[in-house]
Amino acid sequence: MSFERSLPISFEGNKIYDIVYSDNFDGLDTYFKSYNAENARKLCIVSDSKVASLYMDAILDIAKKSFGKVVSYVFPEGEESKNLDTVKNLYIKLIEEHFDRKDLLLALGGGVTGDMCGYTAATYLRGINFIQVPTSLLADVDSSIGGKTGVDFEQYKNMVGAFHMPRLVYINLSTLKTLDTRQFYSGMGEVIKSALIKDKDFYNEIKAGIKGIQELSDESLLDTIYKCNIVKKHVVEEDPHETKGERALLNYGHTLGHALEKYMNFSFLHGECVSIGCIMAAYISRDKGLLTDTEVSDIDVLISDHFNLPSIPADVNIDEIVSFTHNDKKADGQTIKFILLDGIGNAIIRTDVSDSDMKNAFLEYMNKH
Amino acid sequence: MSFERSLPISFEGNKIYDIVYSDNFDGLDTYFKSYNAENARKLCIVSDSKVASLYMDAILDIAKKSFGKVVSYVFPEGEESKNLDTVKNLYIKLIEEHFDRKDLLLALGGGVTGDMCGYTAATYLRGINFIQVPTSLLADVDSSIGGKTGVDFEQYKNMVGAFHMPRLVYINLSTLKTLDTRQFYSGMGEVIKSALIKDKDFYNEIKAGIKGIQELSDESLLDTIYKCNIVKKHVVEEDPHETKGERALLNYGHTLGHALEKYMNFSFLHGECVSIGCIMAAYISRDKGLLTDTEVSDIDVLISDHFNLPSIPADVNIDEIVSFTHNDKKADGQTIKFILLDGIGNAIIRTDVSDSDMKNAFLEYMNKH
Repeated sequence: MSFERSLPISFEGNKIYDIVYSDNFDGLDTYFKSYNAENARKLCIVSDSKVASLYMDAILDIAKKSFGKVVSYVFPEGEESKNLDTVKNLYIKLIEEHFDRKDLLLALGGGVTGDMCGYTAATYLRGINFIQVPTSLLADVDSSIGGKTGVDFEQYKNMVGAFHMPRLVYINLSTLKTLDTRQFYSGMGEVIKSALIKDKDFYNEIKAGIKGIQELSDESLLDTIYKCNIVKKHVVEEDPHETKGERALLNYGHTLGHALEKYMNFSFLHGECVSIGCIMAAYISRDKGLLTDTEVSDIDVLISDHFNLPSIPADVNIDEIVSFTHNDKKADGQTIKFILLDGIGNAIIRTDVSDSDMKNAFLEYMNKH
Repeated sequence: MSFERSLPISFEGNKIYDIVYSDNFDGLDTYFKSYNAENARKLCIVSDSKVASLYMDAILDIAKKSFGKVVSYVFPEGEESKNLDTVKNLYIKLIEEHFDRKDLLLALGGGVTGDMCGYTAATYLRGINFIQVPTSLLADVDSSIGGKTGVDFEQYKNMVGAFHMPRLVYINLSTLKTLDTRQFYSGMGEVIKSALIKDKDFYNEIKAGIKGIQELSDESLLDTIYKCNIVKKHVVEEDPHETKGERALLNYGHTLGHALEKYMNFSFLHGECVSIGCIMAAYISRDKGLLTDTEVSDIDVLISDHFNLPSIPADVNIDEIVSFTHNDKKADGQTIKFILLDGIGNAIIRTDVSDSDMKNAFLEYMNKH
């Protein structure tokens, strides 16, 4: 396969950036040349130790053809690096290399890299340009799209951040071949969530094509990621700064997912927790009369039979997990805005989900899995 | 005098916030009530130790009538507090007090407080609302208007920051009566700069009314600050994120001013350096054939005869000061965009100001003062 497809993302009717799909990095050359057409701009490629060892040289080679100066900043892989210290060290690097307001950052990696690099770009000199080159499924379908950037602070995830749009998202699907299976399956949590909240046809296509996805067929991956991006495109274009209700719909599966993730001290992956949260939220949707037993069972089977969900220890403290939902930063004062499904493909916001509703869903999940 | 006047500031045609002028804090009550009409929001008043001792109690009393919870965060006064550590401690305070996305920060103080508090508001939970209650002339006419926020990083001023608009700027002119004279005169540097770049009539009014300003007459202060704000309003509305040329005009006097400020290790105040920079930039404007000798002399006398400018030590290294202009973050690559006056009231951007032009201006200033 050799292809190039793109999807424009707009803000208030004006195109801000493209998501470009390819099976290699060569297309970056065109973008670099156009970015640097006028002046001798500088580029800093930001990546973690693991991704840098795989792809840094390839990107450096392409970038050096266009930029007057190309530098790299590599930090230790893992969520532990997503903090203000990593950001500060990147500021220092940029200062030392005399980066100014028209120079460019490139985030090469998964969600940690994109969020941290994007936040640095948002705040260095009150904001410089950056582009996203995601290398994980989670980053392809979620974290690289929509302009949310940030880092963890103390024990809180994404507590410090900013909305800052990238100038380009360049998805090289071939990077998914080097992603470990657990990370890939974790990304599928967000994929299925995207279909569940907005697009029943897409949901049915995932079901029908699950084998191709698991085998990382190029066509399946392109189709799946593209459709996820279309769902996210519509939501973020409607509500770019999460000030209206629309963007909250993306949090389907996340209220209980985040609480579980935190309770498990991040030993489960984000997408794994989202997958489990999606199943539990389907149970609650059924309890509220919004989904049929058949639909709930269908969702449960699709997620749990194909993506190796981690086992929740039998002795977890469900009360404590549910209590964590009240500290989630998406909580608005005391009221939790819980996302449910009013039929597959139609997410809605509800404020009538009680602690007891959540506990029941948790218990049902524990009994069934 | 008892008055209330206001000036709306817009972004892309939509009003974002008002600058409200008063001679007391009572008008905050109306704003607090309207902000908190729907829900039990929280307010955090952020101030330095000096300003807090003067005004914190008064604001607390008014705020407690409207907000369910009012807390305060006081940090040591001075530019040394304008850093990421102060921001981090404020994050921790907000987390401990369970501040969420709809709660409010209030910056009570001068430029350090407004910039630091505004940056925290820009980045806590990817952005929460804040209001500015400036208590210095510099903050009234410059730092509180226009949405620039930030902190110093390592030895670099405002190296880390974000554009984040306040929801209200509430100017209580009576706070200027407690400002020390040196700080007040420093603020006048930005006042005269505002007139010089955009409004010759305003410049002539300052000259004619200089006595009233020095005596802090209420009417003179209101008129002067209001007119400065109108100049800044037009510039920031035209170029909110400093991406076009227009906003650069506000940097008149700042290229050499910043360099001097840095060379003097911040022992001179910002506005003092801007005043000196305005005089030097007038010399350069004359050397480029843009101002007459009479105009330059007029500017020089107005600034240096009335506002106690600090003496530059005779042994300063002018080469080094000029070299600092190349590290200024407003430098775009290698080219310095220098703001000159093409007549009083008409600032323009020039890229043909050489190091030698700057050195000559510096020498002329040293000889004359």
